[in-house]
Amino acid sequence: MEKINIGVIGCGTVGTHFIKTFTKKRKNFFEKTGIKFEIVKVCDKDEKKRKIFPHLFTDNPYEIINDPKIDIVVELIGGVEEAFSYLKNAIKNKKSIITANKALLSEKGEEIFGLVEKNKVYIGFEASVAGAIPIIKTLKESFIGNKVSKLLGILNGTTNFILSQMTNYSMEFKYALSIAQKNGYAEQNPYLDISGLDSAHKLSILAKFAFNKSISWKEIMVEGIEKVEKMDIDFAKEFGYRIKLLAISKKTNESLEMRVHPTLLPENHLLSLVENVYNGIYLEGDLIGKSLLYGEGAGGYAAASSVISDVIEIGIKLYEKNYKFIKFLENEKLKLLPPSEICTKYYFRFTAIDKPLVLAKISKILGENCISIASVIQKKENPEKSVPIVMLTHAAKEKQVNNALKIIDKLDVIRKPTIKIRVEE
Amino acid sequence: MEKINIGVIGCGTVGTHFIKTFTKKRKNFFEKTGIKFEIVKVCDKDEKKRKIFPHLFTDNPYEIINDPKIDIVVELIGGVEEAFSYLKNAIKNKKSIITANKALLSEKGEEIFGLVEKNKVYIGFEASVAGAIPIIKTLKESFIGNKVSKLLGILNGTTNFILSQMTNYSMEFKYALSIAQKNGYAEQNPYLDISGLDSAHKLSILAKFAFNKSISWKEIMVEGIEKVEKMDIDFAKEFGYRIKLLAISKKTNESLEMRVHPTLLPENHLLSLVENVYNGIYLEGDLIGKSLLYGEGAGGYAAASSVISDVIEIGIKLYEKNYKFIKFLENEKLKLLPPSEICTKYYFRFTAIDKPLVLAKISKILGENCISIASVIQKKENPEKSVPIVMLTHAAKEKQVNNALKIIDKLDVIRKPTIKIRVEE
Repeated sequence: MEKINIGVIGCGTVGTHFIKTFTKKRKNFFEKTGIKFEIVKVCDKDEKKRKIFPHLFTDNPYEIINDPKIDIVVELIGGVEEAFSYLKNAIKNKKSIITANKALLSEKGEEIFGLVEKNKVYIGFEASVAGAIPIIKTLKESFIGNKVSKLLGILNGTTNFILSQMTNYSMEFKYALSIAQKNGYAEQNPYLDISGLDSAHKLSILAKFAFNKSISWKEIMVEGIEKVEKMDIDFAKEFGYRIKLLAISKKTNESLEMRVHPTLLPENHLLSLVENVYNGIYLEGDLIGKSLLYGEGAGGYAAASSVISDVIEIGIKLYEKNYKFIKFLENEKLKLLPPSEICTKYYFRFTAIDKPLVLAKISKILGENCISIASVIQKKENPEKSVPIVMLTHAAKEKQVNNALKIIDKLDVIRKPTIKIRVEE
Repeated sequence: MEKINIGVIGCGTVGTHFIKTFTKKRKNFFEKTGIKFEIVKVCDKDEKKRKIFPHLFTDNPYEIINDPKIDIVVELIGGVEEAFSYLKNAIKNKKSIITANKALLSEKGEEIFGLVEKNKVYIGFEASVAGAIPIIKTLKESFIGNKVSKLLGILNGTTNFILSQMTNYSMEFKYALSIAQKNGYAEQNPYLDISGLDSAHKLSILAKFAFNKSISWKEIMVEGIEKVEKMDIDFAKEFGYRIKLLAISKKTNESLEMRVHPTLLPENHLLSLVENVYNGIYLEGDLIGKSLLYGEGAGGYAAASSVISDVIEIGIKLYEKNYKFIKFLENEKLKLLPPSEICTKYYFRFTAIDKPLVLAKISKILGENCISIASVIQKKENPEKSVPIVMLTHAAKEKQVNNALKIIDKLDVIRKPTIKIRVEE
C-alpha cells in the first residue's frame, strides 16, 4: 500500500479547516486513489493550537521540513520571508510543496518555480488565487491549447463586498467598510485589500499562466477603492453600469496591459453579477472564446477545497506508476428519486373563460391538493375570448400537481390544457 | 526524445478543427512538455476529406486502431454502436482514447470505463459535455474534496439560443427555431436538442462524477422546449424570471433527483445570464459553496480546446516518469504596456459651480486632447452649491486624459479634483 505523509505549517483559518476536513474525508480519498494520505505533523507558533491537534503538534517548522518520512509540506502561514525560507528548505529536502501564499508567489515565484524544477518535486498553489475557483488548473491544463487575449478578474472578496454594499444599500465607503469589518470580511487594517495590492499579487500569478509572462506585482498599475463615492456608483447605475475593483490583463501584439482599479462594467456583463465576497474570472482565448469561472474567493472551506485537490493530485503523481486514474466509486445507497416525488415551485398558465369565480374554483382544487399559491396574474377582462390566468406556487409535490391539473383541466371553464413549468431558485 | 502518435477517427467539424489547430500549435506543446506530439493518421468515411489531409488520410479506421505505433486514438464520429466498437478495439490494443461522444458515454460509459481500467490505458472526454468548459476535470480533480449537493446546467446551446431569441426578440418557438437553423445552431432535424435528450445524455455523464452514481439517460425525466410559448416567457418576466432548459441534479439524503425540463429561474440567478449558444454549470458543494463555470458549449474551436487538453494530459501521463510538470516558457518579446499608454473609455465626475458655459469649457479641453464624449448627466440647477457633471467618454489614451484633467481641474469653475474611473466592456 502506498502512503503519502503530509506536514502542515500554519494552523490559522485555512490550516485548521484543511486539517479537519482532510482528516474527516481521507478514507474516501484512499478509496478513490488507492493511496493512504495522512497528516502526520502540524506546526504553529501559537502554543494554544496544541490543544486542537495534541498528537500532531509542533512549534518548530523544521521538525516538518527535516522529517525524512514527510512527502508533502503544506505552507499556510502567509507572509513572505519566513514562508520562503521554509519552502526553500523543504524543496531542497526533496519534498513537494503546496502553498496558498499569493504574496510569496508574486514576490518569489521565479525562485520557487526554479527550485521546484531543479529538485524534481511538485508544487501546488491552487488556493493562492480565488479560493475554491480552479483557475490555476484551468489556465495551466484545461486551456493549454489557447492563446489567452484578455483576463478580467474580481479577485478580492473584501473590496467586492464593500462595493456590493455601497451599490445595493446606498452606503458610503466608510460605513460599508465598517460592516465588512464587523462581518469578518475585512481586517482591522484593511490596507492590503482596499488598496488593490492583494488583487495585484493575484493578477501577477494569473498573468504568468495566462500570458507566459512574469510580471512582478510591483510593476502593475494599482488604484484602490477608497476614493469611490456612493454618488459615483449611483451615476454609474444611471448609465447602466456597475463599479467593480477589476484586475485586468490584456495582450495586444507584443504589449501586455496589467492594471488593478475601480472599473465601470456594463450591468449585464457576467462579472457585474459577481456580488459580495464572491470572486469571478472572465477570460477570452482563441479557441475557448469567452469563459467565466465563479466561486467563493476566500474562507477556510473554499481554500481547503483547493488545497485538498493539490494534495490528491501530487499524491497521485508521486505514485503515478501504479495509479493511472481516480477510481469511480459507485454510491450504491443513492436511489434515483421517482419524478412523481419531485418537490418544487411551479408556474401554471390556465386558459379559462373570463367569468367570475374561475379563480376561486381553481384555487379550491389546488388547495385540496396541498398546493399553495405564491402570486397570480389575471389579465384584463375580455368577455369574447378565453383569458390566461398565470400563477406561481410555493413548493409542491409533482404527484399532487399532476393530480390537481387533471381535475382542473376537466372544469367547464377551462378551455385548453394547462401549461406547467417548474421553477428553480 | 519522447513522442506521442495520435490517430483521429472522424473529420467532421470538431475533427477538422482539432487536427488543424493541434498541428498549428504542436511546436508550442513540445516546448512546454518536452514531448513531440504528432497526428500520424486521420480517418473519415467521406473520401472528399482526403483532399484536406492527403498525407494522413485513410478511410479504414482499423488502420488507426491496429497501428502499433499509435498511442492515442481520438474518436470524433458520434453515434453509439460504430464508435463503441472502434474504441473497444483501440483499448484492447492498449491505446489511450479520447472521445467527445456524449451519446456513447451516457449509453456505454460503464463498459468503456471498465475496459479502460482493465487495460491500464487513459481516457479523456472533456469535450463530451459543455464544449470548452472544463467541467469534467473540475468535478474529477479540482472539486474532489467536495460532496456536491446540487448541479444546475444549461448544457445545450441550440435550445438556449432558441429560448434567448424568444426572450430577447419576442419570438414564437417555431420562428426562433428557424433562425437557429439558418445560423447553423440547430440541425435540420433538431429532435435530439429540442427534446432535451442531448441534455439528458450530458447530465448522466456529469452526475457520475458529481454524485458517484451511474444513471442511464433513459432513467432521467425529460421534457423538451417545444411547448414553451412566447406568452409564458413574457409572464415569467412579469414575475421576475427567465425560462431556461435546465439539466438538474440534486442529492438529498439517499435520494438523487435527475431531470431535464424548461425551468423558471430568477432573473438575477447567474444561469439567467447564460445567453444564446453559451453553456453554464452551477454547482453547490460542502467546501466550495456556490460555483459557476461558463463558456462556449459547442463549435469546432471550443471542442478542440478540450480535446487538446486531454491529448496533452494523457501524453504527459504516458511519460510522467520523465516530465514532472508543464514548463513555464517566458515570452521574452511581450512587453508590459506603460500605464500612460492605456486606451480605454472613462467615467468623469466634475464638481463645478452651476454657471452657463461650464460644460462648454470642459468639452473644449477634452476635445483638444482627443477625448470625445459619449454621454453626459448634468444634475438640476442649484445656484447655491457646486454641482456634479458626469460623463462617459469614448476610448481615449490615459496620457491625454491625465493631461486634460490637469488643465480642467485648474479652471476657476471647478471646485474639487475630478473623479476618473475607467470603463471595461
